Amino acid sequence: MPVRALWYRNGTLAIIDQRALPGRTVVRRLTKLKEVADAIRTLAVRGAPAIGVAAAYGMVLGRREGRYTPAAAAKALRATRPTAHDLFVGIEAVRRVWAAGGDVEAAADRYRAEIVEECHRIGVAGAPLFARTRNVLTHCNAGALATVEWGTALAPLRVARQHGAHLFVWVDETRPLLQGSRLTAWELGRERIPHAVIADNAAGHFLATGAVDAVVVGADRIARNGDFANKIGTYEKAVVAREHGVPFYVAAPWSTFDPHRATGRSIPVEERSEDEVLGFAGARTSPARSRARNPAFDVTPAKFVTAFITPDGVFAPRAIARALARRADRTADRPTR
Amino acid sequence: MPVRALWYRNGTLAIIDQRALPGRTVVRRLTKLKEVADAIRTLAVRGAPAIGVAAAYGMVLGRREGRYTPAAAAKALRATRPTAHDLFVGIEAVRRVWAAGGDVEAAADRYRAEIVEECHRIGVAGAPLFARTRNVLTHCNAGALATVEWGTALAPLRVARQHGAHLFVWVDETRPLLQGSRLTAWELGRERIPHAVIADNAAGHFLATGAVDAVVVGADRIARNGDFANKIGTYEKAVVAREHGVPFYVAAPWSTFDPHRATGRSIPVEERSEDEVLGFAGARTSPARSRARNPAFDVTPAKFVTAFITPDGVFAPRAIARALARRADRTADRPTR
Repeated sequence: MPVRALWYRNGTLAIIDQRALPGRTVVRRLTKLKEVADAIRTLAVRGAPAIGVAAAYGMVLGRREGRYTPAAAAKALRATRPTAHDLFVGIEAVRRVWAAGGDVEAAADRYRAEIVEECHRIGVAGAPLFARTRNVLTHCNAGALATVEWGTALAPLRVARQHGAHLFVWVDETRPLLQGSRLTAWELGRERIPHAVIADNAAGHFLATGAVDAVVVGADRIARNGDFANKIGTYEKAVVAREHGVPFYVAAPWSTFDPHRATGRSIPVEERSEDEVLGFAGARTSPARSRARNPAFDVTPAKFVTAFITPDGVFAPRAIARALARRADRTADRPTR
Repeated sequence: MPVRALWYRNGTLAIIDQRALPGRTVVRRLTKLKEVADAIRTLAVRGAPAIGVAAAYGMVLGRREGRYTPAAAAKALRATRPTAHDLFVGIEAVRRVWAAGGDVEAAADRYRAEIVEECHRIGVAGAPLFARTRNVLTHCNAGALATVEWGTALAPLRVARQHGAHLFVWVDETRPLLQGSRLTAWELGRERIPHAVIADNAAGHFLATGAVDAVVVGADRIARNGDFANKIGTYEKAVVAREHGVPFYVAAPWSTFDPHRATGRSIPVEERSEDEVLGFAGARTSPARSRARNPAFDVTPAKFVTAFITPDGVFAPRAIARALARRADRTADRPTR
């Protein structure tokens, strides 16, 4: 059964608390902007497209509370996490409408529907790449949980399977927070997609021994030149994939592309609590006095990317800037909603 | 205070149980060959040089039990783990003497002393490489716990510090069994060597951002051409280090070099239980029906190695075969002990 990460109705945003998976499926019902901000900050909801949608509904809840200006509500939600571009796009989609006195619920619903539809189109656009692929490696969770429905990296695999492809997925466990072994494995298991969890360290071994035919990941922010930020560890997989001539795909909706960022060099990389590294599943594993560093993302230069899988087709990195410019022209032509 | 991984006296091999670190320092006293074999198999004692020494004393205990032939004792100990070459060298050092009716305790003591001395010489030989280095990355544990005393990868860092170098060590946590965050961090902490634990995924980020000046690791088996097996994940670090022009050193005593292995392609890679990946410390983190793959080692081709740090100096990979041939000549000249 496919997953939906969150849904909204009558002043309540319901989210699957992704911290409790795969052990328990806990649904949290959020009615205040601050609750949404906390859910994003603590990773109860995570994944760039999904936090964009959650933040859009956070704006709706802020409006209903009656004690925020549009700017103050946007500021509070923007402060939750720095790296995912979708967060800012989702907030802005509702702030604009709110500031103009429009229907914020309709704006958030429209934003959610756009993301879900774009993810489905990513699946359709990317599926042919995997029609003859046997073994695919993915890192972190870029599935429905990360995007509301379909996923980004997982969408082409889902569509390819509907078309009869026989895929096997290598799932990087994705330390420190195990979004791979907890969340991606959970999604794949629900749909009976054959997979095996591996330590992140093992990806290089399987790439080197011919056990991986393609790598596909999501993204948190993509610069105009095709450099992109994604979950820490993505960069290592990209470098090793290129070493072995294994195609490396990045799947993302347009909200993940940052048209104001020329390269990846200036993408802000969130550093999270060292406790995520010093322990495991709540138990301290390092010596009491040891410290840790915990960057949550890394930036992979465009040269390691075979292609971006977007809602409007598969693009080489050098084609991204032009595609973004075309989109900006189209948006400029459109009447303001 | 420096660490000693194991010590032998009067029919008892005492080992620090490395599974309990860093939380508790548990010493196990082993009096039977089978207990030593179990300790090696379950990683109570681990690290290629240390399991070689433990197995040498396992032979001694087998002789004392009176129910093994030299060949049967050697066979039982050889069956514990397939990858580390030192295991077979340590066993053979005692088997030879036992079969010839010699003093097995003296043979094992001599083997232990040789390993400890070689590790110290690795430190002396390698220290100049780190005299002007600030930030060093290491993977897994190649410290005293892995080698009885001094370590392999850590030995040059220890000696460089004695000579006044100001080193900072990035410690890969080393999933699935966290030998980095549990053991290397523990050793460094005892000696107040500044360090930070990182998720294995983060090594690429720190290599890419100029935060790592050199990488140094141990090895489990080194082929004549310089290909080497080491803890899973080593290969990814080597590929990314080369991408950034960061020197990549491999430190090992001669027992780790396999003169009968032309390349790394045929080194046996142990695959351990999938439970090590699917959970941690007894708690399941993956969905109940998900499976895992768990290769414990990977093989890094020689082209990624800047130099090998050996007891007899620092060698480029292409010089290894010649050094091994010289050693074989010297051994052939020596009267049999």
